[in-house]
Amino acid sequence: MAQSSSFPHLAPQPVIYLVEPFGGSVRRQNANMPHIFWDDAVATRGDGIFETILVNNARPVNLERHLERFRRSAAQLDLPEPNPEQWRAATREAIADYVRERGGEDSAESAEASCVWTMSRGRATTGVPTAWLTVRPTDPEDARLRAEGVRVATAGRGYTVDSDASAPWLALGAKTLNYTATMAALRWAREHGYDDIIYIDPRTERVLEGTRSTVLVVKRGNRMRTPKAGPDVMAGTTIQAVFEYATSQGWRCASKNLYADDLRSAQSVWLVSSVRGPVRVTHLDGAALPEPDNASEIAQLIDASLAAQDT
Amino acid sequence: MAQSSSFPHLAPQPVIYLVEPFGGSVRRQNANMPHIFWDDAVATRGDGIFETILVNNARPVNLERHLERFRRSAAQLDLPEPNPEQWRAATREAIADYVRERGGEDSAESAEASCVWTMSRGRATTGVPTAWLTVRPTDPEDARLRAEGVRVATAGRGYTVDSDASAPWLALGAKTLNYTATMAALRWAREHGYDDIIYIDPRTERVLEGTRSTVLVVKRGNRMRTPKAGPDVMAGTTIQAVFEYATSQGWRCASKNLYADDLRSAQSVWLVSSVRGPVRVTHLDGAALPEPDNASEIAQLIDASLAAQDT
Repeated sequence: MAQSSSFPHLAPQPVIYLVEPFGGSVRRQNANMPHIFWDDAVATRGDGIFETILVNNARPVNLERHLERFRRSAAQLDLPEPNPEQWRAATREAIADYVRERGGEDSAESAEASCVWTMSRGRATTGVPTAWLTVRPTDPEDARLRAEGVRVATAGRGYTVDSDASAPWLALGAKTLNYTATMAALRWAREHGYDDIIYIDPRTERVLEGTRSTVLVVKRGNRMRTPKAGPDVMAGTTIQAVFEYATSQGWRCASKNLYADDLRSAQSVWLVSSVRGPVRVTHLDGAALPEPDNASEIAQLIDASLAAQDT
Repeated sequence: MAQSSSFPHLAPQPVIYLVEPFGGSVRRQNANMPHIFWDDAVATRGDGIFETILVNNARPVNLERHLERFRRSAAQLDLPEPNPEQWRAATREAIADYVRERGGEDSAESAEASCVWTMSRGRATTGVPTAWLTVRPTDPEDARLRAEGVRVATAGRGYTVDSDASAPWLALGAKTLNYTATMAALRWAREHGYDDIIYIDPRTERVLEGTRSTVLVVKRGNRMRTPKAGPDVMAGTTIQAVFEYATSQGWRCASKNLYADDLRSAQSVWLVSSVRGPVRVTHLDGAALPEPDNASEIAQLIDASLAAQDT
């Protein structure tokens, strides 16, 4: 019986599992209880990494690419190497709990969810990293944006990453928890009538990335383009899956430098990310982008790319 | 009776107070229990602000300047305005507990402590910010560095802050929890035989700041210089107190652009911060800086500046 039906007055809680680093135990954490201490590096220095994984029909989507990036982020920050089998097992177990507690695989409520992995450097008093994962419903706002598309502003990021390796410790490309500026940018966007921002280099207008997504440009002649990953462009797990699958379907896909003009002249522009999936950019800096004939075909292609990555 | 003596087998715990935002209650939190939930913005996005305040002989040092910066940080990040009287009262109460639990005002153990204020955007499920403060012993390593001085490397920060306001939401000057890069820089420094880093602009060699401190340059003729605060230099609470006091003692103090050469030609170079106090830079990029005759005079001047700020 679903656990939630024992407490019909309570909404089902997210599923949380604590994952002991160094291959230790994995155990369920009560979502009504806090689990992070005052001296955890995540609370004192924002010092940690994360991944956000779509759960579709009880399966984590594109899991191996997330695992690969999680391991790379950990290595760049001198965190212990995540044990792949442990994280796969904890994810499976948490998803199974989540689906069971929401009425089983056939319930609409359990069809889609979001799984977040977090690893912090841990408590100062113990020196042992803290790691956990959560499984919870996706944000209804994501479904709305997927259906309606997004109004986007282009803007500089406020700083330029130096390419001269003058700071050898910089964990560029690591997916850290340092999102204060990102969240401030999103608040600014919403206050000004936008749904999101695409970062560009203000000097050259080179396109970087969305605040929490990868930019995908579709051009006539079955061509897809995305900004090359590098110090200022995070390597996206979703775009990798999309390019792999689209190539198999006859598309020509390339990672290369793109400029704001390439957005304006594209057949269509998309923001892709793990949980929100493909979202078409309908307006750029206030100007409507033409709706392409093949928008639903592209969205289906991207969904199919991710379905092909189900594990 | 000191609380700790009831449990002689346990070391005294830090004192933690939860501070309800919007002027609500202030209450003691058991340091052996976690208080941060899985969906707190501090754990999911590093989205919060902090201040670190020295406690000297049961008094918070330079409190009003910390309060002013905390309020400024909150305003820049659209967090609720911290209520000054509430934070002053919570700080007084926590320090009183701390001193009492460590044997009273005359005990060596309670003579010096560190008080950290934190405010996060709070839980996604409640939308209410989470705020707390801790009082705990200072790091013995700080005393060692204060006595021995520090070996410092100059290095770029890895990115350049754009001065063209292309990202109007950037909370420049806010003291946020996004310290992943700072902590990585410190790990790199220690692995390479340094105690700390002074950030410089790699193109111009303009001096910015220490990883968690302000740079103070002492020149012959009773002159003090510090890099002007701006988008890439945090306004230091300690340097403000030092300049105010030193000026009253006949020093000529100025905030202006400084370059790496100014460090090498200075009479002495110091890193100043709230809890660690003044620390002299003994070596810069591997080269010894000459020990000035007046090193202890300068250190005393800085200590006196802070004593003058006791509230």
